[in-house]
Amino acid sequence: MDMATEAGPGGTTGPGPSQATVDLLGVLAGAELTGGLGVAADGLAAPGRVRVAMARMAAERLRHYEAIAEHLEQLGRDPVETARPFEASIAQFHERTRPQDWLEGLVKAYVGDGIARDFYREVAAAVEPRTREVVEAVARPGEEEFVVQVVTDTIAVDPRVSGRLALWGRRVVGEALARAQAVVAERPGLAGLLVRRADGSDLAEAGRLFTRLTDAHDARMRRLGLTP
Amino acid sequence: MDMATEAGPGGTTGPGPSQATVDLLGVLAGAELTGGLGVAADGLAAPGRVRVAMARMAAERLRHYEAIAEHLEQLGRDPVETARPFEASIAQFHERTRPQDWLEGLVKAYVGDGIARDFYREVAAAVEPRTREVVEAVARPGEEEFVVQVVTDTIAVDPRVSGRLALWGRRVVGEALARAQAVVAERPGLAGLLVRRADGSDLAEAGRLFTRLTDAHDARMRRLGLTP
Repeated sequence: MDMATEAGPGGTTGPGPSQATVDLLGVLAGAELTGGLGVAADGLAAPGRVRVAMARMAAERLRHYEAIAEHLEQLGRDPVETARPFEASIAQFHERTRPQDWLEGLVKAYVGDGIARDFYREVAAAVEPRTREVVEAVARPGEEEFVVQVVTDTIAVDPRVSGRLALWGRRVVGEALARAQAVVAERPGLAGLLVRRADGSDLAEAGRLFTRLTDAHDARMRRLGLTP
Repeated sequence: MDMATEAGPGGTTGPGPSQATVDLLGVLAGAELTGGLGVAADGLAAPGRVRVAMARMAAERLRHYEAIAEHLEQLGRDPVETARPFEASIAQFHERTRPQDWLEGLVKAYVGDGIARDFYREVAAAVEPRTREVVEAVARPGEEEFVVQVVTDTIAVDPRVSGRLALWGRRVVGEALARAQAVVAERPGLAGLLVRRADGSDLAEAGRLFTRLTDAHDARMRRLGLTP
C-alpha cells in the first residue's frame, strides 16, 4: 500500500503518515504501556525466577512504548493525547481478563505478546516506511520464551491445570480480538490499514487476517501444551 | 574500608567481595525488582501523563535490577537465590505501605527512590571497587523529578490532600527504616558494611547514618510541599 491509498477517511494527504496511522500508533502506545504495567503487576505474586521473567516482559513492553512515543513525538504528536481515545477499550480488555494467579498472568502475557507481534507484522506492511521501521522493531521476538518451559513444567506436575489454562487462553484472545474489532468499528481508517481498502470494506480479507491471527494463536497454545 | 576489614562475620577472606557485600547486593536486587513491579502496579490507576512517568520509574528500577543481577552473575552468584532471604522483608514493607490511590503510589515511589539512592551512596564507600561502580550507577538521580510538579500541583488544587500525603510519607519511610533495621539485625556483617565496624557495634555511627537518611528524607518531603 502506498501513501496515497493509506490516506483513508480522516486521513491526511500530505507527506506524513495518515490519521489512520497515527491512530494505530496511539493504539499500540496505549497497549504496550498498559500491558507493560499489567504484566509487572501480575508478576508481583510470582515466585523468584518467574517474577524476574515477568519483569523482563514488562520492561520490554515499556521499551516498546518508548519507541512508539518517540516516533509520535518526531511526527509532532503528543503520545499521551494520541493514545487517550483508546484507553477505555484497553482498560476494558484488562478488566475482563484479570488473572487469578501468576500462572494465568504468565499465560496472558505470552498469548498477548504473541498476538500483538503477529498483528504488528500484519500492519507493518500497510504504513509508511518510518512507521514501519518502528512497528517492525516492536514486533521482534523478545523475552517470552521462558514461559513455554514454566507452563509445560507446571502442567507436568499438575495436569489438571491445563484445562483451566486452555479456557483462560481462549478468553484472553477472544477479549483481545473483540476489543480490537470494537476499536476498528469506530474508525474505518484503521480498518483500511488492515484490509488494504481505505474504508475497510473488504470483509473477505478481514476474515483472512482474523484466521491468520487465530491460527498463530492456536499454534502458540499448543506450544504451551494447551488445547487451543 | 578496605577488603580486609570488609570481611565480617561470615565474610570471605579471598579476593572477591565478602558475604556481607553479596547479602547487600541481594537486598538491593530484591528491592529494585519488587519495587519496580510495585510502582508499575500502582501506576495502572494513574492518569495518562502520570502513568507514563510511573512506567519510567518502574523501568528504571528494573534496569537497576538487571545491573545488580549481572554483577552477581559475574561474581558467580545466582541473583534469585541471593535475593531470596530478603524477599519476606521486602514483601512485608510493600504489604504495610499499600497505596490507596495513584497519588500515594507516586509519593511512595518518590520517597522510596530517594531514600534508596541516599542509602546506596552511603554504602558505596564500603564495598570493593567493582561493586561500588554498580552501586554508584544505581544511585544516580533518575526519573523521579516529575513527581514534585504533580504533587505540588495537586496540593495547590486541593490543599486538604497535603495532610494525608505527609502522614503517608512518614509511614513509608518509617516502614522502610524498620524493615532495613530488621534485616540488618539478623546479619551483623551487613551492619558492618554500614557502620564501618565488622560487627556493626558502633551505635553512634549507626545513629548518624540514620539521621543523615531521615534528614535527606525530610528535605525531599519539603520539596513536595509536605510537612516532614
